[in-house]
Amino acid sequence: MSIYDVRISRIRDWMKERNVEVVLVTSPPNVFYLTGFDCHPHERFMALCLYASGTEALFVPTLEKEAAEKSGFSRIVTVSDTDNPMDKVRDVVGDGPFGSLAIEKQHLTVARLEQLQTVFGTEPTVAAEDLLLGMRLQKDEAEIAIMKKAAEIADRGVEAAIRAIEVGRTEAELVTIIESTMKSLGASGTSFSTLVLTGEKSALPHGTPGTRAIQAGDFVLLDLGAVYEGYCSDITRTVVVGEPSDEQLIIYEAVLAANLAGIAATKAGLPAKVVDAAARQTIEGFGYGEFFTHRVGHGLGIEVHEFPSMHGNNEQELVPGMVFTIEPGIYLPNIGGVRIEDDVLVTENGVEILTSYPKELQILPAN
Amino acid sequence: MSIYDVRISRIRDWMKERNVEVVLVTSPPNVFYLTGFDCHPHERFMALCLYASGTEALFVPTLEKEAAEKSGFSRIVTVSDTDNPMDKVRDVVGDGPFGSLAIEKQHLTVARLEQLQTVFGTEPTVAAEDLLLGMRLQKDEAEIAIMKKAAEIADRGVEAAIRAIEVGRTEAELVTIIESTMKSLGASGTSFSTLVLTGEKSALPHGTPGTRAIQAGDFVLLDLGAVYEGYCSDITRTVVVGEPSDEQLIIYEAVLAANLAGIAATKAGLPAKVVDAAARQTIEGFGYGEFFTHRVGHGLGIEVHEFPSMHGNNEQELVPGMVFTIEPGIYLPNIGGVRIEDDVLVTENGVEILTSYPKELQILPAN
Repeated sequence: MSIYDVRISRIRDWMKERNVEVVLVTSPPNVFYLTGFDCHPHERFMALCLYASGTEALFVPTLEKEAAEKSGFSRIVTVSDTDNPMDKVRDVVGDGPFGSLAIEKQHLTVARLEQLQTVFGTEPTVAAEDLLLGMRLQKDEAEIAIMKKAAEIADRGVEAAIRAIEVGRTEAELVTIIESTMKSLGASGTSFSTLVLTGEKSALPHGTPGTRAIQAGDFVLLDLGAVYEGYCSDITRTVVVGEPSDEQLIIYEAVLAANLAGIAATKAGLPAKVVDAAARQTIEGFGYGEFFTHRVGHGLGIEVHEFPSMHGNNEQELVPGMVFTIEPGIYLPNIGGVRIEDDVLVTENGVEILTSYPKELQILPAN
Repeated sequence: MSIYDVRISRIRDWMKERNVEVVLVTSPPNVFYLTGFDCHPHERFMALCLYASGTEALFVPTLEKEAAEKSGFSRIVTVSDTDNPMDKVRDVVGDGPFGSLAIEKQHLTVARLEQLQTVFGTEPTVAAEDLLLGMRLQKDEAEIAIMKKAAEIADRGVEAAIRAIEVGRTEAELVTIIESTMKSLGASGTSFSTLVLTGEKSALPHGTPGTRAIQAGDFVLLDLGAVYEGYCSDITRTVVVGEPSDEQLIIYEAVLAANLAGIAATKAGLPAKVVDAAARQTIEGFGYGEFFTHRVGHGLGIEVHEFPSMHGNNEQELVPGMVFTIEPGIYLPNIGGVRIEDDVLVTENGVEILTSYPKELQILPAN
């Protein structure tokens, strides 16, 4: 049995337990998780359809037919740009009404649901996310091995950028260095648009790199990730160029302490919120609580943001196999910011840190 | 009045005509179109809310506050990772029920709709897309000027790649050259993952570039686009390395003729489907109809795929200001493929081609 057969059989078991007749999986990450077919069909229709009375079918845009066949999935149904996707679904599953339909409520759009109701003739009653996200939450050994490699590629991206940092170098140039380094190491892409933010721009958690050139006294914040064999990494490091101010030294120390506190708090059996609390209390202790404006982290895997959300109200229990980021930050508007982010794996005995680029403050020469 | 005020006042007029009390705009491209705030909040809640009884409010994740303020939008409401976004919406618009709510049915998820119904207490009744996509369909002068620049950057990306093509060069290396060239010219990113596909891989319309090195006899297919000031370009060119086979020459000729036929067929007042038909009939005339496996093109603007869909059943009338791609292709499995893609603007008198890199077949030396 392939890993995909195992995963699909878990869904089949769940369908029996819950008396679900049809499951429609439409989000690209979940289709990839269940079939190995890695495809982002944009506005076109793609779905893995499991139904009680027949063999599951994978609906793909016609122009993805060859790629879908390469994934090895056995039953592929193509939908051309002029087909009505719902006619194709009806051809496979037959006419409704069906008693119970599971959909991804967090992915399926209202428009698509209205179309599906013309086939299924019923309100959907079950959120398939509960099952799918629960399965993806605990990474298996093969997934962990891939994610370690993705993290290692990101480490090397950071290393290449930091080597290239000098006064006059632009954010965009560093982005190019990071991305070409990661691609040369086997990354198929980046987990998200690589962030290189310098000077006062480092205070924008999601700013956009541009033509700003590094100046003496700047923080340089690097936030990047590699996609490797379908899995994401995500790392942030911040360095300073030239002699740091006292405040720069203090906020760096606070963020590093918060990162370490978050890691130390991570233990199987505890609720997820303890990680945020540990990091946040550390930063509050330094007097910068109001400038840590986001949750401490997010789940990581096929998607760069997936479950669990590592915020301060999350009661979900940490379990071995979970992978998430720990990324506290302090952002002083118009001055600059620091963020230090690692990817961590919850283990039976504690935590394993997947990202390994050093975290002590690096003060790079300004001349 | 700013361009954003003009756009919002058009929605206000539409609300009055249709007796719509609340409009909730949640897709990042439409939020950008209406506010100038360019933000992809991932799973976090972002929405522009227009309602009959008050001034419109822009809900943004807390960590995007500063960036949102820079956009100049007047009324920003932040939603932190621990807030319930629906509480924030209720604070602004008051308690429902409301008579008529407009949402983006093609963007809003079923889960988000279920949450919104706790505030609005009613089924949504109006698809806001009809209005919003209709507005975005006809680009104004400022948008066209930006899109010309985006196309010019893509032209230069193609040029840089073709100069660098030689036997032994890998797909990933050419991707890096294209992307760094476009970024150095002011692109904030790529419209999509840059495609460089060589040899038999050029037959995969959405294949993934990798470490395959160019060999003599290969087609090299380059499909790429730049994002410039929030707008996308999209161009494809195909060249051959070394002496082409007779079939390579024929399919190149067929695709080029189809591209030119599609452009020649583009005229304001005609239905969109004529463009696909002109290109498709040309390729069918060469006997390769079954290998042209996708629609002839797609609308282009803030999104790389937007309305109109240029497929063979689209009766929508072409009007001045529309921008779309014309990109016929022939894909011979396990042999190779050719695609030639331009971005075109429908004008009063015909069509203006935004992409300008030459299209005659280039045969590059194999040694």
